[in-house]
Amino acid sequence: MKQSFLAAKTNMNAPADADCINAKLLTQAGFIKKEMAGVYSYLPLGFRVLEKIKKIIVEEMDNVGMQQTLMPALTPLENWKKTGRDNVDIAYRPTENTVLGFSHEEIVTPLIKEIMRSYKDFPKCLYQIQTKFRNEARAKSGLLRGREFIMKDAYSFHTSEEDFKQYYDKVAEAYFRVYERCGLESYKIEASGGIMSGEEKISHEYSVVTKAGEDTMVFCKKCGFAQNIEISKKRKGDDCPNCKNSLNEEKCIEVGNIFDLGSKYSDAFGFHFTDTDGKQKPVHMGCYGIGVSRLMGTIVEASHDENGIIWPQTVAPFQLHILSLRENEKAEEITSNLEEDGFEILYDDRNESPGKKFADSDLLGIPLRVVVSKRMLEKGCVELRNRKTGETQEIPTRELQKYISTYFMPIKK
Amino acid sequence: MKQSFLAAKTNMNAPADADCINAKLLTQAGFIKKEMAGVYSYLPLGFRVLEKIKKIIVEEMDNVGMQQTLMPALTPLENWKKTGRDNVDIAYRPTENTVLGFSHEEIVTPLIKEIMRSYKDFPKCLYQIQTKFRNEARAKSGLLRGREFIMKDAYSFHTSEEDFKQYYDKVAEAYFRVYERCGLESYKIEASGGIMSGEEKISHEYSVVTKAGEDTMVFCKKCGFAQNIEISKKRKGDDCPNCKNSLNEEKCIEVGNIFDLGSKYSDAFGFHFTDTDGKQKPVHMGCYGIGVSRLMGTIVEASHDENGIIWPQTVAPFQLHILSLRENEKAEEITSNLEEDGFEILYDDRNESPGKKFADSDLLGIPLRVVVSKRMLEKGCVELRNRKTGETQEIPTRELQKYISTYFMPIKK
Repeated sequence: MKQSFLAAKTNMNAPADADCINAKLLTQAGFIKKEMAGVYSYLPLGFRVLEKIKKIIVEEMDNVGMQQTLMPALTPLENWKKTGRDNVDIAYRPTENTVLGFSHEEIVTPLIKEIMRSYKDFPKCLYQIQTKFRNEARAKSGLLRGREFIMKDAYSFHTSEEDFKQYYDKVAEAYFRVYERCGLESYKIEASGGIMSGEEKISHEYSVVTKAGEDTMVFCKKCGFAQNIEISKKRKGDDCPNCKNSLNEEKCIEVGNIFDLGSKYSDAFGFHFTDTDGKQKPVHMGCYGIGVSRLMGTIVEASHDENGIIWPQTVAPFQLHILSLRENEKAEEITSNLEEDGFEILYDDRNESPGKKFADSDLLGIPLRVVVSKRMLEKGCVELRNRKTGETQEIPTRELQKYISTYFMPIKK
Repeated sequence: MKQSFLAAKTNMNAPADADCINAKLLTQAGFIKKEMAGVYSYLPLGFRVLEKIKKIIVEEMDNVGMQQTLMPALTPLENWKKTGRDNVDIAYRPTENTVLGFSHEEIVTPLIKEIMRSYKDFPKCLYQIQTKFRNEARAKSGLLRGREFIMKDAYSFHTSEEDFKQYYDKVAEAYFRVYERCGLESYKIEASGGIMSGEEKISHEYSVVTKAGEDTMVFCKKCGFAQNIEISKKRKGDDCPNCKNSLNEEKCIEVGNIFDLGSKYSDAFGFHFTDTDGKQKPVHMGCYGIGVSRLMGTIVEASHDENGIIWPQTVAPFQLHILSLRENEKAEEITSNLEEDGFEILYDDRNESPGKKFADSDLLGIPLRVVVSKRMLEKGCVELRNRKTGETQEIPTRELQKYISTYFMPIKK
């Protein structure tokens, strides 16, 4: 895609009201625009990143046998009365009898109840990637705490606690893979169920270490043990309870959570199943959330430098950023050849100074930058720069495709 | 996918409150579930159809140079005050200062204003596939008139009316391709701009002939001329004004619309551009809508019989429906071979009677049905049936892949 065509403009000045790195950099680089507190639009660059993240999540959720659905945001109040969540502070109420879904247990449970009757129908897990609304008193931190945000929420249904636990562990592993594929190092932390399932049930949060975190965790770099600092203080131990290694304390961002719901919601909707012995028994539920837009913000918090964003390959809006320094003819030829090979390219064809083009490229954070200049072309080369390492190489133009292929696979087709 | 695993149950009885074919059949076949008047959940089968329709739309919109974005549903009231649409009847108001977007001119115009300043930045067109909310007094007709629905809305920005008109014609052609690829025969009808752009501006509706239509149009089968019956009555002509052929009068469903917005919205937000002569001039806008979920309902209205849905190949949830009549071993072998070839298959492995399996298959409406039975296998064959034509053939099992490939291409990869 030609940069002159792209609907995005960079801005070297940070927005006045940006209270964190992700809001600042994503706005300056033209990925998002703030519409009101906690509510953002995704411009083409931001939309492309969202789609990449969604694709990773869809692949990993499908892989553990979840089935994708789409439930509405506008939901009947009567459903929420059945679980006592009709007067939750954060719920938007567009009319007297409706609630904008802040979670979907109240919708998915009666929905699946119509489908699953016998033990033979179990287990099943439905998920969706859908827009949630929460009237947060203080929306803040860019994409980290929004009033409207994109969430992957999944709900599993089981005939026994044992079956649930097995499935919970499978999802727990899939969550690690999602974050790893998004370029994040995540830790699984024991937590309490809170508003979703009650204090006594098991639940875990996934957290990523970054300075911008609202929470604090202690974790062990050796064995991966991690714990919320509040719980750790109660435990009164300074070392890792598993491997006795010393623990690190860092700010962190929660990027997902998984819950044992027990039969709280199935009981509320009278959802039972007929077991092998012909008896009616309670359905055991689990739920599994990932903040999709929050994940985008977290990636920026975890991966940037003073010049801009550093996108991990897997979620970058484009793979290559080709900069023409007044050599548009040759740069276009290189671009279209690589596009034919299936690489995703942003091509800076703009009539801007080299300095402006370099600064914009750093700000946008595309993994590999290719500079096409007179000086390089005279040597039969282009300059290739790795945004993350800063490493720069002169590559013979005819070997560019081969070199880039060692760095990543073509994405299209 | 195994049908025993799929989260869907068919129901031979129509829902008591279904007032139309699409609500009836899609509910009975397990594609959607009504959550409240005008609000539906999409179960895995329905979600798959939605995704296919979205993919067609995305391809055609990208093809005319639109760029995909995502704007929020929750929007600030102040934006709507600027255009005088803050007190529109159909607007949900979740809080005193917010509106749930029923259209997005009020969001996209100030957004793009930050990006486009000079004539060099024009033209551009942004689109999104996003959830709209309209508090319809009478939500009805299943997916045809919802309170929450999925829409593709696009907004183009131009330096002149001439440039706008050229682009408008390009989009108009792309719209025909979208409907054609969805298996629908559509007509482009002159209409008035109404709430979007005012009575004096040009606009067109795209309509599909079906009995369930709320509107009535007259159209010419020979040259494609079509007109709303009200306008036609004013014209007082019984024959096609282009080719003098006789006109047909039929009920129809509106499946899209395109509008000349002039500078109504750009004026409201003070969005001007600097022209070649250095002067500030008004920006000319167009907008282009397709009801995505409505399109799904329309396809069912246009393509069904007394036994169920007949999905066009391009939007079917699966390409093949393989039915095992107590021959699961062989049926599974055939299924996994064809899945490896890249075909999308729903495999009915359930322990149900042949009659139940046949009836469900007709209801679901997957384009090709393959029956694996003892009688056929003894002849080295399977039975292949075309859902649309009813044509049944005995095909040697080893030639099945070849035969199906002549019918459609593998979808995956």
